[in-house]
Amino acid sequence: MTRLELFEQIKKKGSFLCIGLDTDMEKIPAHLLDNEDPVFEFNKQIIDATHEQCVGYKMNTAFYEAEGVKGWMSLEKISYYLRENYPSHFSIADAKRGDIGNTSAMYAKAFFVNMDFDSVTVAPYMGEDSVRPFLTHPGKWVILLALTSNKGASDFQTLQTGNAQLFEKVLQTSSKWGSPDSMMYVVGATQADMLGQIRKSVPGHFLLVPGVGAQGGSLEEVAKHGMNKCCGLLVNASRSIIYAGSGTDFALKAKEEAMKMQQEMNNLLAEYL
Amino acid sequence: MTRLELFEQIKKKGSFLCIGLDTDMEKIPAHLLDNEDPVFEFNKQIIDATHEQCVGYKMNTAFYEAEGVKGWMSLEKISYYLRENYPSHFSIADAKRGDIGNTSAMYAKAFFVNMDFDSVTVAPYMGEDSVRPFLTHPGKWVILLALTSNKGASDFQTLQTGNAQLFEKVLQTSSKWGSPDSMMYVVGATQADMLGQIRKSVPGHFLLVPGVGAQGGSLEEVAKHGMNKCCGLLVNASRSIIYAGSGTDFALKAKEEAMKMQQEMNNLLAEYL
Repeated sequence: MTRLELFEQIKKKGSFLCIGLDTDMEKIPAHLLDNEDPVFEFNKQIIDATHEQCVGYKMNTAFYEAEGVKGWMSLEKISYYLRENYPSHFSIADAKRGDIGNTSAMYAKAFFVNMDFDSVTVAPYMGEDSVRPFLTHPGKWVILLALTSNKGASDFQTLQTGNAQLFEKVLQTSSKWGSPDSMMYVVGATQADMLGQIRKSVPGHFLLVPGVGAQGGSLEEVAKHGMNKCCGLLVNASRSIIYAGSGTDFALKAKEEAMKMQQEMNNLLAEYL
Repeated sequence: MTRLELFEQIKKKGSFLCIGLDTDMEKIPAHLLDNEDPVFEFNKQIIDATHEQCVGYKMNTAFYEAEGVKGWMSLEKISYYLRENYPSHFSIADAKRGDIGNTSAMYAKAFFVNMDFDSVTVAPYMGEDSVRPFLTHPGKWVILLALTSNKGASDFQTLQTGNAQLFEKVLQTSSKWGSPDSMMYVVGATQADMLGQIRKSVPGHFLLVPGVGAQGGSLEEVAKHGMNKCCGLLVNASRSIIYAGSGTDFALKAKEEAMKMQQEMNNLLAEYL
């Protein structure tokens, strides 16, 4: 998917929402547990119910790996289901991978070639040659961690190094590896006060913003400081949407939550775009 | 496995070798390809042939994920095979994971609970709460990336931050999260000149040292600068051992390569321990 195509979807839907499918077997509604693949069934129903409210879906690989082989099967099925039924939705393998070159190439094969995800999240610590193999797949995206939404972000990411904090250095250095058409950055919504500063470093890049909802970030602040002329934002919400209900109407409840965010986003697009 | 148990194994074998099972379907000897699970069969034969020469095995998860569900099945089978047949060998899931707390907990479940690996490699970028969930499993180990063996290590890891380089800051800060009985660090053999300095920061911790062999690091230099009174080193070699042969005698060839390293390590233990 190209940046322009993504922007077109955002305008069409009045939404820059990405829904995080952090699907936890222990939180799936009881009536789904008799299903052959409850995780897939849960995700399928969430996707079918919410696809008009969002422009992307993010699969957190940890939740699938925790279920072993069955979990990996669910992950593959969901990636294929999305590709076949909702090809204009941007899909993210939230895997936070990153290793030496020949190993990163294997991860790229897993997520881009086998499962046909549009993008994968990558950790920057190992530097350029750990990221490059993900950038050799045309039409695919690297979403590099910059400033994350968790408390531990202040352990290393905000350390001063020369005239910049580490996450700024990551932005400055890595933005030369790809372009705004092949790279995005993870910037937590809990760090909204930093978004203005980040926008100066990477004016054209999309930012994937987790941390709205369960983690407490403000959507208004994110839009105010982070939006650029192509929107430039994908705001992810996971638990607040997918676990909005726990009964047989869970998908409807999820849709209702997604609609609230879509409405707010539609207003913010009118105000800041 | 405890640190003392690992040290006992090292003394018993005269070896601090860890063999990396970066098993690539394209490099497996042709005669194994008819097997139901060629990756498992290859690893099994390598393990059976080399277990007397090494104290640990490292599974690089990327190589398994690249084969999809089948690959994940091979990874599980290998982890169980090791646990059942060679319980005194230290097993490493070289996964380089790391995410917000509830996600890291899922990765810990995948590798520690489901597959019973002794350890998992973790990336430090997201800080303390991304590492903590791996430290709550008694007897299990976090192996945190500090200074890696690849070229990109110089992009961020060696940046000056205050009075220390970033990797030193990672050592200083993270060594308070666990202890030398629950944490190790990845330090590339290509960085042997830094090992003396690293030893001062973390005198008691084991270091997992990749980059000897295919990546060009020197074993002598690693031992000279990195050994402590409990050895404190696990040197990993992957391709140079597992692909030493490509015929029906591949396991024997691997054993011969492992024996060369074991002999050199035995001498180094006599010299520096």
